[in-house]
Amino acid sequence: MQRVIGTMTISLDGVGAGENQTEHRPFGDVEPGLLHRWMFETPDENREEIDAIVDAGSFVMGRNMFGPVRGEWDRDWRGWWGPNPPYHAPVFVLTHHPRESIEMEGGTTFHFVTDGIDDALERARDAAGERNVHIAGGVSTINQYLAAGHIDQLFLQVSPIILGQGLRPFEGLGRIDLRQVASRGASLVTHVLYDVRRAPAPESS
Amino acid sequence: MQRVIGTMTISLDGVGAGENQTEHRPFGDVEPGLLHRWMFETPDENREEIDAIVDAGSFVMGRNMFGPVRGEWDRDWRGWWGPNPPYHAPVFVLTHHPRESIEMEGGTTFHFVTDGIDDALERARDAAGERNVHIAGGVSTINQYLAAGHIDQLFLQVSPIILGQGLRPFEGLGRIDLRQVASRGASLVTHVLYDVRRAPAPESS
Repeated sequence: MQRVIGTMTISLDGVGAGENQTEHRPFGDVEPGLLHRWMFETPDENREEIDAIVDAGSFVMGRNMFGPVRGEWDRDWRGWWGPNPPYHAPVFVLTHHPRESIEMEGGTTFHFVTDGIDDALERARDAAGERNVHIAGGVSTINQYLAAGHIDQLFLQVSPIILGQGLRPFEGLGRIDLRQVASRGASLVTHVLYDVRRAPAPESS
Repeated sequence: MQRVIGTMTISLDGVGAGENQTEHRPFGDVEPGLLHRWMFETPDENREEIDAIVDAGSFVMGRNMFGPVRGEWDRDWRGWWGPNPPYHAPVFVLTHHPRESIEMEGGTTFHFVTDGIDDALERARDAAGERNVHIAGGVSTINQYLAAGHIDQLFLQVSPIILGQGLRPFEGLGRIDLRQVASRGASLVTHVLYDVRRAPAPESS
């Protein structure tokens, strides 16, 4: 059965990125290393989870997750990941500005979707076939899909830091019941996989 | 070496209790079972952590953690735990209203401290001897001791639920760097133990 899985690294206080993103600061006011030390410093220890994060039939990501370009696509930005991105599958990028699809090395193709999150997810589901769809971030994208009740599972990496401020994927959603499917502690991170059992109520206060 | 350890069960979004606590709703607007299902439904699976939470030379807790009585001690409230509380050691209760100490069965004695968190911790350190001191909650008490830089470790139980609102022990503290000491996933909870590496800056923004 195809699942829609939200993936993200968060701090202990639920922050997934800082505000004020730029090309040189993909995580905005949060220092790049802070949340993702586990990925950069201990890749071997977390190989299984790193592979799982990019193991999907297709991906949906927000424009901030794809890059720092705002407004019209007035430059040839092709993502943060170099010529061969780790996705190896179709990636649907949410944007308000149309752009031709970009075929990268290794099977990744970036498609730009201007008709909103429902349309992007429908296209991603079709493209994924029987495989899962990953909502790859950033914070606002995960938040919107959670609010819409589209996410079946959350696969989260909880980093050992309290950031105190920043963008939170669970902000303003009210109560969401989860079921813990798996949880594993590594030296610099705790991996948790949850089923989303009950979506947020539209009028949750 | 004696450590000061903050212990608390929190939701995935960092909520430790609801507002509007009463005698019949110790966790206020958060349903009692929600955060502590792991403790009530799977005690055997989490025996080691349950024992560790109450394994200290002394304890400090806030008045809400001790009970729902506000203002003067105008009734004989002796805690939520019955005649034989699980602490089996001195427990220093923060309050603005003096009260005689209460000796319970099993070695627990409740002392009431009216001179603030520093004084309570000093008395708790003395009472603990070589053993650790646990800051047993609630949210506001953990928050105050974290803000003051007094907490050496956080021993947290992360429950699989997003609450969306409530009282958060990390609220308003700015950035706090942690080191993950241990992390274990059980079926209804993830246990994490962190060293607090850097206390919050007084003017952190």
